[in-house]
Amino acid sequence: MTTTQKFAYDDLYSERSEAAPARTVAHAKYDFAVAYPAPETLPMYGMIDALKAKVDSDGEQVAREMAYYPHALGSPELREYTSEKLKADRDIDVDADGIVLTAGSGEANGLLIQAITNPGDVVLTEQFVYGGTLSQLGKFKADVVGSPVDEQGLIPGALEDTIKRLTADGRRPKWLYTIPESQNPMGSTLPEARRREILEICHRYSMPILEDDCYVDLRFEGEAQPAFRTLDDSGIVMYVASFSKLIAPGLRMGYFVAPPELMERALSFKLGSGPNQFAAYAITGFLKEGLQRHRDTFNPVLKQKSDAMQKGLSEHFGGSGATWSKPQGGCYAWLTMPEGADISAIRDEVFDGGVGYLAGTNFAPNGDGQNMARLCFAFETPEKNFDGIALLAQLFRKHGVM
Amino acid sequence: MTTTQKFAYDDLYSERSEAAPARTVAHAKYDFAVAYPAPETLPMYGMIDALKAKVDSDGEQVAREMAYYPHALGSPELREYTSEKLKADRDIDVDADGIVLTAGSGEANGLLIQAITNPGDVVLTEQFVYGGTLSQLGKFKADVVGSPVDEQGLIPGALEDTIKRLTADGRRPKWLYTIPESQNPMGSTLPEARRREILEICHRYSMPILEDDCYVDLRFEGEAQPAFRTLDDSGIVMYVASFSKLIAPGLRMGYFVAPPELMERALSFKLGSGPNQFAAYAITGFLKEGLQRHRDTFNPVLKQKSDAMQKGLSEHFGGSGATWSKPQGGCYAWLTMPEGADISAIRDEVFDGGVGYLAGTNFAPNGDGQNMARLCFAFETPEKNFDGIALLAQLFRKHGVM
Repeated sequence: MTTTQKFAYDDLYSERSEAAPARTVAHAKYDFAVAYPAPETLPMYGMIDALKAKVDSDGEQVAREMAYYPHALGSPELREYTSEKLKADRDIDVDADGIVLTAGSGEANGLLIQAITNPGDVVLTEQFVYGGTLSQLGKFKADVVGSPVDEQGLIPGALEDTIKRLTADGRRPKWLYTIPESQNPMGSTLPEARRREILEICHRYSMPILEDDCYVDLRFEGEAQPAFRTLDDSGIVMYVASFSKLIAPGLRMGYFVAPPELMERALSFKLGSGPNQFAAYAITGFLKEGLQRHRDTFNPVLKQKSDAMQKGLSEHFGGSGATWSKPQGGCYAWLTMPEGADISAIRDEVFDGGVGYLAGTNFAPNGDGQNMARLCFAFETPEKNFDGIALLAQLFRKHGVM
Repeated sequence: MTTTQKFAYDDLYSERSEAAPARTVAHAKYDFAVAYPAPETLPMYGMIDALKAKVDSDGEQVAREMAYYPHALGSPELREYTSEKLKADRDIDVDADGIVLTAGSGEANGLLIQAITNPGDVVLTEQFVYGGTLSQLGKFKADVVGSPVDEQGLIPGALEDTIKRLTADGRRPKWLYTIPESQNPMGSTLPEARRREILEICHRYSMPILEDDCYVDLRFEGEAQPAFRTLDDSGIVMYVASFSKLIAPGLRMGYFVAPPELMERALSFKLGSGPNQFAAYAITGFLKEGLQRHRDTFNPVLKQKSDAMQKGLSEHFGGSGATWSKPQGGCYAWLTMPEGADISAIRDEVFDGGVGYLAGTNFAPNGDGQNMARLCFAFETPEKNFDGIALLAQLFRKHGVM
């Protein structure tokens, strides 16, 4: 070693860099804080078999494709498959070259956000919305404003009022981010009529919509509503979805659909080439063979888990003044305690007592939601969902919020 | 559809976004323009077997890990393995939590560049250097200056002169990017004595070094020199390497090592979670079982290919006034035609004639290198390397540059 003295970077860090906090994730005994699907339904062998079948049948093609850097848009075969899936499931017409595969929907959102957001731009979201998107919007210095929701999601009239109010204040909103199906964190699904109204409003104010449809495959009751992108192909809708929730988050495979120039501008923020080609073979082969079978296995399991949590909520929170959502898909139920019950303040104590959740404040652009919590029902077993909710009620009583 | 009129984004694009050009990659009959290893050596079955063995033996762990989002630093097992590999191969002491896995070395470079570069900062590189890094530095608005090289790489005295000259001009360099082993594009390996001198210079001017060691495993002759990071653990060296070149670019798996705060600041530019966990299992299992065997298969193939290209160059360019590098590893030979021979201008015609290469101008921060070309010997067969060089000489004569 030429030196033992530590080199000091203090003056060298870029202005945009942030000293991020440590990110060790602890898991409570009953872990409702996560955002993961059921590990017991992950089709690892199905994917390995699909990968092997691909190498057996198209070994030379695979060797060539793996030796190249992945296509900037990602695996051509998986984009072709995604194009067919979007037509079949969502009645969206887009060809493979209009689809960009990304490392999960997180990268898709991040690229699109950067393409249309300058620091200070006002971005609308649901009143409570996915914390990961809020953190990305924060990173790119957006001025994020939540628009009122009810148990069905965004309220069109309130959305227009919000736009008018902000515009009058000199803070004209630039675009809207929304999760219309099985919303994260509230579990709501926006009815078609509202989607049509919101499209009209967005056209009126020239406000694009970033539609995050990453939960559409995780439906165990009721009907998916037509996507914004299905109802409108003018280009005003940027559409993001994912295979991560459907198969496994560890796969990191999502995608977006956007008009050509916007697509190119979003791609200009990529640091490397397209996403993992190795995983793409496994996903393409597995889903081509058995998407429907997989959904038919996966979603009944989700339903059992949701039912168990709902049963726990009814038995242990019924009559307490609490209300909760009854999701038809996705991974989350949304619990609202009476006004004044600050369950964000006691999160750590309840975690130590054995139950993990994320307080509503994690999902509100303005930090509201002290009396609310997101409860992920997708990860634990039905039994643990029921028992964990019983324990949650006990702990809430112990800490004087119920 | 509610509308058929196309929505106009023109006023909505962010200032930082760029309308990127189309990126269809065409391949010449003899493709020396690529930056890929040999497709025939890609161990697809080896990786599939490793993946299956992991699921067989640790199925529950795999299911849990795949159901979670990947650790921000990437697969703990692959980081543990990388820590052992760095100790064994490079005598670098860093534990698994000091290593960040990334989607290829491209992402690693991009994150570190952003952490220490403000627009306008002066960054030094080799006089000719990897175009992908130049393009990232351009994206983040660095003022890139090449420092003189010879056939061994950076010249320490000239580096210090460059620093002094720039500092006198009010353009004090902030940090240095370099590929010391089997350099891209020139194929040179920097001797240990020069590395030590450069470290002293960099300490004197408080200039960190971003060492891109992504070719270290691809050595078929001579000895690797100690890494900058091996010679200096003060933190002044940021170390980047990759599994993409060693196994398959389609895997997108690289990594970096940096002091803790710098690591966190680099991570603050990530858009999603860690890299593909699915690919990580395959890589970890495959390399644990057979890294040395794989290198023993892979590198002799590279040597044959390099030898065939060298033979072609001797037979067909010998006596023409051209010179070329004799790499001991990596993927590239560097051809220098006599001054005044503009082979960048005839690249397209030569491509149409059947031989692809990248002109030196792609690698020079100042656009020099009209009479130079990077020739990738790693992708085509030995026979095609020899025949392609013969054709290249023919085409150069036809176009009057030889």
